[in-house]
Amino acid sequence: MDSATAAAIIIGDEILSGKFTEENAAYLVRELRELGISLRRIEIIPDDVDAIADAVRTQSAAVDHVFTSGGVGPTHDDKTMAGIARAFGVRVVVDPQLEAALRAFYGDRFHERHLRMAEVPEGAVMVPADHAAWPVTSLRNVYILPGVPVIFRRKFEAIRERFRARPFAIRRVYCMADEATIATHLDAVVAAFPAVSVGSYPRFDAADYRVLVTLESKDTAAVDAATESLDAALPAGVVVRVE
Amino acid sequence: MDSATAAAIIIGDEILSGKFTEENAAYLVRELRELGISLRRIEIIPDDVDAIADAVRTQSAAVDHVFTSGGVGPTHDDKTMAGIARAFGVRVVVDPQLEAALRAFYGDRFHERHLRMAEVPEGAVMVPADHAAWPVTSLRNVYILPGVPVIFRRKFEAIRERFRARPFAIRRVYCMADEATIATHLDAVVAAFPAVSVGSYPRFDAADYRVLVTLESKDTAAVDAATESLDAALPAGVVVRVE
Repeated sequence: MDSATAAAIIIGDEILSGKFTEENAAYLVRELRELGISLRRIEIIPDDVDAIADAVRTQSAAVDHVFTSGGVGPTHDDKTMAGIARAFGVRVVVDPQLEAALRAFYGDRFHERHLRMAEVPEGAVMVPADHAAWPVTSLRNVYILPGVPVIFRRKFEAIRERFRARPFAIRRVYCMADEATIATHLDAVVAAFPAVSVGSYPRFDAADYRVLVTLESKDTAAVDAATESLDAALPAGVVVRVE
Repeated sequence: MDSATAAAIIIGDEILSGKFTEENAAYLVRELRELGISLRRIEIIPDDVDAIADAVRTQSAAVDHVFTSGGVGPTHDDKTMAGIARAFGVRVVVDPQLEAALRAFYGDRFHERHLRMAEVPEGAVMVPADHAAWPVTSLRNVYILPGVPVIFRRKFEAIRERFRARPFAIRRVYCMADEATIATHLDAVVAAFPAVSVGSYPRFDAADYRVLVTLESKDTAAVDAATESLDAALPAGVVVRVE
């Protein structure tokens, strides 16, 4: 799948209120890029069943893969399973595989409330992860991951290769110029190379350039041709270096 | 306004593709909390006029204040003004105050393309910021800020006091327990103190506790009473400390 797309839905009042620094979206940004997946949107939303349902329903229809983070524990503020069930109009049910795993893990310390962690939207699939007892719960194209960063990463790593797509190619052109003076040259490259995404980023804290231009695509030849076209068109002295 | 709410809309392919680390949402999380504003949602979206229009229209109706970051320069990938104009069904026009400021600033180096940075949605208001020449453009309850972090912060700092609301009160209860075993006690506090937001956060990397419980509200007395109620209800030895 060469145009694979994804969205991340980060669920948690604790992120929006600054109690914990967001780490999982930043991690997904890096991982998905490396996998050749285009991350189309990140939403950070509160612990609210309707907000979760709306975000999941919308993104599930808009992109190929949806990853959720958080809200999967046993306490009152864990609302992700209810939200995803509502998104697809299904019930929340206890998964027998998860229930057995929880009973085996906790043994004498098993508490009735632990069963909350065996609840899943009806129709959910258990994707084998780091070990069989603790799979990743998924429903349709939605992968439901826990919010604690160390566990989020461990579970994502266990399933990441199933998402691998063709890699992105990127070139970077560092310019000593004002953005406005190179804008028409960028327009020409954008028009001539529709397969290439061109970004222009002014920076005021770099020693030897003022604008970073990025050219990116899954078509390496197109990226190279667009980069050469831009380099040739810009006035002498503007391009500091190309990487 | 004791229940002031906000949303942040971060516009930029460069964040979603990992070319630059997101800094402005993380900054707003801290600043808005300190100001007593409840940040209800963060959306990180691509450089796409329709995506910007949809996000701004929805959030402008949902919360008191909307802050956008990015997409306000002179190049082809700067689409924020067009997106916000589309959100509210108005045209994009050249603001004479901004045009005069740009012509004065650039002098002999003025380039026709700099006028793109004087374009605003029709009806926009110029909020005085760090100096009169460079105000913050706003439309209705939407404040349009640039994406470069150092400038984003400078402009937000210039207008931040107009958003100040009643502060939040928060107490933290550190527990040595499994979340499931304290869940019913948390339920009781949630039911008894509806004005208090209660969060439960398992952590596996802390030396002396396993769950952080937060109790938060603008009603300090309610937070204190809820904290005392929880502390009294939990079995002996569970509460490690209260802050």
